[in-house]
Amino acid sequence: MSERGALMAAEIAEQPSVLARQLSADDGLASLRELIARYDPRFVLFAARGTSDHAALYAKYLVEVQWQLPAGLVSPSTLTLYAARPDLRQVLFVAVSQSGASPDLVGSVEVARACGALTVAVTNTPGSPLAEAAEHHVDIHAGPERAVAATKSYTAQLLALYRLFNGGDAAALPEAAARTLDSAALAAAAARWREESTFVFTARGYSHATAREGALKFMETSYVPALAFSAADLVHGPMAMVSAGTPVIAVQTAGAGGASMVDVLERLNSIGADVLTVGAGLPLHTDGVDEALLPILEILPLQQLAMQLALDRGHDPDRPRGLSKVTQTW
Amino acid sequence: MSERGALMAAEIAEQPSVLARQLSADDGLASLRELIARYDPRFVLFAARGTSDHAALYAKYLVEVQWQLPAGLVSPSTLTLYAARPDLRQVLFVAVSQSGASPDLVGSVEVARACGALTVAVTNTPGSPLAEAAEHHVDIHAGPERAVAATKSYTAQLLALYRLFNGGDAAALPEAAARTLDSAALAAAAARWREESTFVFTARGYSHATAREGALKFMETSYVPALAFSAADLVHGPMAMVSAGTPVIAVQTAGAGGASMVDVLERLNSIGADVLTVGAGLPLHTDGVDEALLPILEILPLQQLAMQLALDRGHDPDRPRGLSKVTQTW
Repeated sequence: MSERGALMAAEIAEQPSVLARQLSADDGLASLRELIARYDPRFVLFAARGTSDHAALYAKYLVEVQWQLPAGLVSPSTLTLYAARPDLRQVLFVAVSQSGASPDLVGSVEVARACGALTVAVTNTPGSPLAEAAEHHVDIHAGPERAVAATKSYTAQLLALYRLFNGGDAAALPEAAARTLDSAALAAAAARWREESTFVFTARGYSHATAREGALKFMETSYVPALAFSAADLVHGPMAMVSAGTPVIAVQTAGAGGASMVDVLERLNSIGADVLTVGAGLPLHTDGVDEALLPILEILPLQQLAMQLALDRGHDPDRPRGLSKVTQTW
Repeated sequence: MSERGALMAAEIAEQPSVLARQLSADDGLASLRELIARYDPRFVLFAARGTSDHAALYAKYLVEVQWQLPAGLVSPSTLTLYAARPDLRQVLFVAVSQSGASPDLVGSVEVARACGALTVAVTNTPGSPLAEAAEHHVDIHAGPERAVAATKSYTAQLLALYRLFNGGDAAALPEAAARTLDSAALAAAAARWREESTFVFTARGYSHATAREGALKFMETSYVPALAFSAADLVHGPMAMVSAGTPVIAVQTAGAGGASMVDVLERLNSIGADVLTVGAGLPLHTDGVDEALLPILEILPLQQLAMQLALDRGHDPDRPRGLSKVTQTW
C-alpha cells in the first residue's frame, strides 16, 4: 500500500512532461485539423462526462471563439435513452473520455456516425471501444492514469483540444506548467480552509472549465460540496448563498473572461467572502503562453490544493470513497 | 411589509391559473411553430441565465428528442465578450428571460440576428429590450412576478417552450398542477431537513432541468449549497461527497429518464443517503399529462419545500439577501 495521495501527487507532478511528450508526438493531429477544415462543419457537438466534460466545455469556447462556429454539449441520453436520430450531416461530433470505455459515450458516437456526423474520439486509451467507434482518434499521450481523481489526463485533453481547434504555438507550456507547479503557495490556503465545508468556484469564458473542474476535484477528494458557476450565473440566485467568510475560488487571468470578473469580485469582497484568486493568490507563470491555453495552467494549483486539503482531512485522494477509475454510465 | 414569503406563496399557488391563462391565450404560438417548421432549422441554440437557463435546458431536450435536431446552450459571452461572429444561417436562436432586460442576452440576440439566425425571445415582458431585439416574441403570460425567487415564470416558460417545440395537448395540465400543489406532503420533509446544510439533486433526461431548478430554489431562499447533477455525471466523481444521511432529492417520474434512475438510486440507498424522490415521497398528480410536460409538475413540490425550509430557518424567501429581481449581466 503506497502512501496516501502518492499516485495523485506523482500524476500532478508529471504534467509538464506529459504536455511536452504530447507536443513532440508525431500524432497526425495537424492533418486531422486540416481534414476537419476541409469537411467544413456547420457546427460542432461534444459528448463527455465528468472531468472530460469540463475539457469539452473548454473546447466549446475554443470552437465558438476561434472557429466562429456554434458548438454544443450533447446530452448523450437523448441519443441513447430517448433514441433521437438527428440529421448530423456536416456536423463534427467529438467524444472526450480518458478511458474510452463508457457505454453511453460509445453509443452516442455510433448514433452520431450513423446520422452522418464526422466523428472524433479524444481518449487516453487507443484501442478502447470509444476510439474504435469513432472514425478518427486523438491520443492525448498522458500515459496510464492510476489515481481515481483525473489530473494529467485533464490537462492533456485540454492541450489536444487546443491543438485540434486552435493550432497555435504551445511550446512555452511545459516550462510554464513546471514553474506554476513549483510556485504554488498552497500551505496557507489549505490551512485556512481545513475546516470549511463548502466551496464556491467562479470564472468566465475559457476559465469556466477551470471552475467546474476545480470544484469536481474538491468534491471527489475532500468529499465537500463545491459549487461552480459562471460569474454571470452566480449573480442570478446562487449569490444569496455566499456570506461573510464563505470560501470562494475565483479564476481571474488575462483576457476578456478575466477582465469581466471585476464586478463580481467587487460584490464578493463587499459581502466579505473569503476570496482566493487563481492568477494572484494562487500565482501562475504564463510567459509566452497563449491566453487560450491558460486553463491548462489555472487548474494546476487547484489540483494541488484539492490534494492537500484531502490529506489534511485524513482522506486518501488516490482512492476516493464510492468511486472507481473507469465510470460506466448507461 | 407583508408576511414573510407571502409573495412567493401567492405566486406558487397562482401557477394552475397561469398555465390555464396561457393555454387559452390567442397568442399566435401555433403559427410561430409553423413558421419555424417552414424555416427548417438545421439546429437550435438557446441563450439564458439562471432559472431561465433551466427552462432552456428543458427545451434543449425537447428539440433533441422531439424535433430530432441538435441543440445547444450558447455561452453568451462568446458572442459578447469574445465577439465571435458565427454563421447562423438556418439556425433558430431562442433567448429565454423573465424580464427581458439583461444586456448580455439582448446583445447575444442582436449578434445572432445579424449573423443570420431566426431569433425568438421568450419572456414575461412584452416591450422589453429582449422582446424588441428578436424577430419573434413569445409572451409566457405569467403576469407580474414580484418574489425574487422565480416560480410561476419558470413553469410558464416550460409550457410556452413545450407548446413551441412539441405542440401536444396540455389541457390536463392546470388541473394536475392544482392537485399536485394541494397534495404535497412537505411538512415532514421540511422538518427532517431543517438543520441540513447541503442538498444534492439528481435526475436524468427531461427532468434534469427540475434538478437544476430545484437546487437553485434551495440556494436562493435557504442560502444552503445545493448541487444538481445528471445521474450520469453524479457517478463521475461527485458521488464521493454523498455519505450516510446526505439529503438527496431524486426526480424519478415516468419515461426513459426516470427509468434510467434505478441504478443510481440503488447506489444512493446502499450508501445510506437520505433520499426523497419527486414522484413518490413528493407525489405528483399526472393524469392525462404528456410525459414531456412532467417537469412542470415536478418542480411544484420543490418550490413549496424550498419556501417552507426558508421560513423554518427564519429567512424571507421573497427577499433573498444579495439578490434583486432583475439581474443584469454583462
